[in-house]
Amino acid sequence: MELHEALARLETVQRKLFAYNTASSALYLDGATVAPRDTAEGRGVALGVLAGEQHRLMTDPALAQALAVLEQRRDELDRLHVREVEELGRSVRQLTRIPAEEYMAYAELTNEADSVWKRAKETSDFALFRPCLEKLVEYNRRFAGYYDPSKAPYDALLNEYERGVDTAYLDGFFRTLREKLVPLIRAVGEKPQPDVRFLHRYYPAARQRAFSDYLMQVMDLDRRHCGIGETEHPFTLNFTSRDVRITTHYYEDDLASSMYSVIHEGGHARYELDVDPQVEYTVLAGGASMGVHESQSRFYENIVGRSRPFIEAIFPKMRELFPEQLAGVTPEMFWRAVNRAEPSLIRTEADELTYSLHIMVRYEIEKALIGGTLAVKDVPETWNRLYKEYLGLEVPDDARGCLQDSHWSGGSFGYFPSYALGSAYGAQMLRNMEKEMDVWGPVGKGDLSHITAWLTEKVHRYGNLLTPAQLVENACGVFDPTAYTDYLTKKYTELYGL
Amino acid sequence: MELHEALARLETVQRKLFAYNTASSALYLDGATVAPRDTAEGRGVALGVLAGEQHRLMTDPALAQALAVLEQRRDELDRLHVREVEELGRSVRQLTRIPAEEYMAYAELTNEADSVWKRAKETSDFALFRPCLEKLVEYNRRFAGYYDPSKAPYDALLNEYERGVDTAYLDGFFRTLREKLVPLIRAVGEKPQPDVRFLHRYYPAARQRAFSDYLMQVMDLDRRHCGIGETEHPFTLNFTSRDVRITTHYYEDDLASSMYSVIHEGGHARYELDVDPQVEYTVLAGGASMGVHESQSRFYENIVGRSRPFIEAIFPKMRELFPEQLAGVTPEMFWRAVNRAEPSLIRTEADELTYSLHIMVRYEIEKALIGGTLAVKDVPETWNRLYKEYLGLEVPDDARGCLQDSHWSGGSFGYFPSYALGSAYGAQMLRNMEKEMDVWGPVGKGDLSHITAWLTEKVHRYGNLLTPAQLVENACGVFDPTAYTDYLTKKYTELYGL
Repeated sequence: MELHEALARLETVQRKLFAYNTASSALYLDGATVAPRDTAEGRGVALGVLAGEQHRLMTDPALAQALAVLEQRRDELDRLHVREVEELGRSVRQLTRIPAEEYMAYAELTNEADSVWKRAKETSDFALFRPCLEKLVEYNRRFAGYYDPSKAPYDALLNEYERGVDTAYLDGFFRTLREKLVPLIRAVGEKPQPDVRFLHRYYPAARQRAFSDYLMQVMDLDRRHCGIGETEHPFTLNFTSRDVRITTHYYEDDLASSMYSVIHEGGHARYELDVDPQVEYTVLAGGASMGVHESQSRFYENIVGRSRPFIEAIFPKMRELFPEQLAGVTPEMFWRAVNRAEPSLIRTEADELTYSLHIMVRYEIEKALIGGTLAVKDVPETWNRLYKEYLGLEVPDDARGCLQDSHWSGGSFGYFPSYALGSAYGAQMLRNMEKEMDVWGPVGKGDLSHITAWLTEKVHRYGNLLTPAQLVENACGVFDPTAYTDYLTKKYTELYGL
Repeated sequence: MELHEALARLETVQRKLFAYNTASSALYLDGATVAPRDTAEGRGVALGVLAGEQHRLMTDPALAQALAVLEQRRDELDRLHVREVEELGRSVRQLTRIPAEEYMAYAELTNEADSVWKRAKETSDFALFRPCLEKLVEYNRRFAGYYDPSKAPYDALLNEYERGVDTAYLDGFFRTLREKLVPLIRAVGEKPQPDVRFLHRYYPAARQRAFSDYLMQVMDLDRRHCGIGETEHPFTLNFTSRDVRITTHYYEDDLASSMYSVIHEGGHARYELDVDPQVEYTVLAGGASMGVHESQSRFYENIVGRSRPFIEAIFPKMRELFPEQLAGVTPEMFWRAVNRAEPSLIRTEADELTYSLHIMVRYEIEKALIGGTLAVKDVPETWNRLYKEYLGLEVPDDARGCLQDSHWSGGSFGYFPSYALGSAYGAQMLRNMEKEMDVWGPVGKGDLSHITAWLTEKVHRYGNLLTPAQLVENACGVFDPTAYTDYLTKKYTELYGL
């Protein structure tokens, strides 16, 4: 195969992958937003066919052949093509490493596990879920060997989610968090808590919708290219860097819930919209790893969105939209209320300070499960012991304990650490940003453009042209988790007068 | 190829076609409803790839081979497979009859013609559109020869839209309409017109949405399987017989507009939802020809929805939703207002009585253009002459004349007659229905179930298992256009006291 033929095939395959992804995303979005309730079947059939076509495309010997030619003649390729070949080659190899029968059997298992897990969670019955979880752990241990037999199994899985990250890296990270945050959380717990009752007055959905429009405007999310919808669980979906959708969920007795969903998803959207269009329709389009993505969404949500200058800047608009509800409330009271920190049982409802300890529990358990040092039957006991140790809480039942998350039932082991890493990356970005410019002056005037410009320059514009590790180095330098613990210590010392 | 292999391929291809259609529909629906304004590019790329994949699938020699085997062994197939082979074989042959270069060039031409037509319509400049229209006519004359060289060109095109229909059939049909309707319209024109001003009071969109929900309930459209959205132009889209979407457009100064859009699109949806699920995921799924489909949507919209018993049945609910707007309005006044008939220039805004005369003008012109007896340059003059003759109107400019519709710029010649045929089929179905049961008693109580049951039995359930001609015969018997003219004569005689 000639070089130009190989390049032509590379482009064709990527455009087809784009089309299949776009089609699947449109069906997913429809299902999550406007589709009538009992219409999943047809979409399921269509999605199955599209997944099959995508698999056929990726495992086509002609593609493997083209990639081999391009890898061999790497020196003749430009930077974009080099990375496209790297990324696509990696995906192709990954797909072909797992024997087809095992892949099929695993797909069936996760499908079954999902419904078993739901029932187990409803009835808080770990014993029901246990056989599934045992099989899932077994499969993942085996898959780890397919991914990279030279690595310890959990390291091989971690590498699939956040390339370059391994147990040594995470052990150091979580050790720092544990040492700094556990005492900090104890100290906060001894102080009086701010009043949050005004957040739970009646906030009509129509008004909250107008508030979302305003927040998107503050984040400079161009509505000609970024839509907002409503779903049970908020998410961000990117079709291209010029077509991104976010969703939120309005609770009429909770102002902060949708507010911070919009800012969080808006952060993901900001990232996607800022990717350089030159990578459009290739495998380099869209944001990099999940950890890098979370670093951006949490930057806007927590570091900016829960900062005092930001609250002060947007408060006049909030008073205009919610005059009765916020009568007698000052920006300072609001800032304190949305930063209330207290150990709790449920990860998805946790505050900024305690959130990473929830992750740490899951990390310890995953590591031991995949490493073979913890039996599935002992998960509830270990879970409850670690919640007591890190967060000082008694877990009343497994529904509010080790059955609360969907990740394991979906077969995701090694995914959780990305959440905590994202927060830590963000804090280090802030440290670097503050060295270079006045971050908070403009924020206090409702201007985030300097922040977006900085993040775009260091992270967003690259899409997948740089690896996650390169992006982190670009924006953070050498990873230093104390930037995160310092940030939290400073913030909560001020909030709680420690 | 063995029979079982050929059957397996038949099934696989149909499921893939279903998936590509579903994906394209989801992208179209997204674009028409919630997608941000400037996001067409990515969807365009994805749709292009999906169309290419579909074309590849249909022109795959292995499919042609399977179809040949199945056609040869037709006697061994069940009724469903026989029809699937017929329909799929027809589509495959059609795709391969036009040489690829001509097909590509034509696609480019229609793309260009669409934007030229828009500009020409805006500036009422027929000369601008004329070269495009000349090329489009030329292509369609040539394509007609590819479709069926044994037929006259316009007959070959007609057969593509409504199989079995030809010029002889339509000439008779339109002659009857002309003879009966032109004098009827004149007679109506001499009578005083009903008051319609109350239809244009302020009807808030939120209230109209509640009214749509009510109308869908009256039509027994199960909301677990039928959604409603909002778009510039109303349409119906079917994913499966258990997933159908309709759209409408709310004008706050026009109650009847969305009301009759919902009933019209609801009629299309009723048809799709009633198709027997045994044909799901095959080429036999979904309603038959456009003419048959329009017969159903117009049946619910005009025959039922603009009938006096229907208005009487739903009026209490309307009064509840719009108490101030309908103060002093009686069901009779409402019935008269929504049946106001008067010659007008624009087809899409025409009433039930004058609508088919708009179609007749287009039919005469298309027939002569494709038949080679009318030059494109003479279209405006002919158009204006026919509007004068049939509707008694002077056409002030081409924007409100021969440039008003998008069909010709999209390359559709032979499509228009289906609109009029649909109305006529519906009237004949009513005549047959009235022979078999009390149609209007239940309607007066807001119950349409007997009508839906009758239409489902004769038409809906078949999907494409019967041909359009068979469906018409099933429900109408021998086609008799006087059923339509009798229906209109009776209705408007009563309305206008002729």
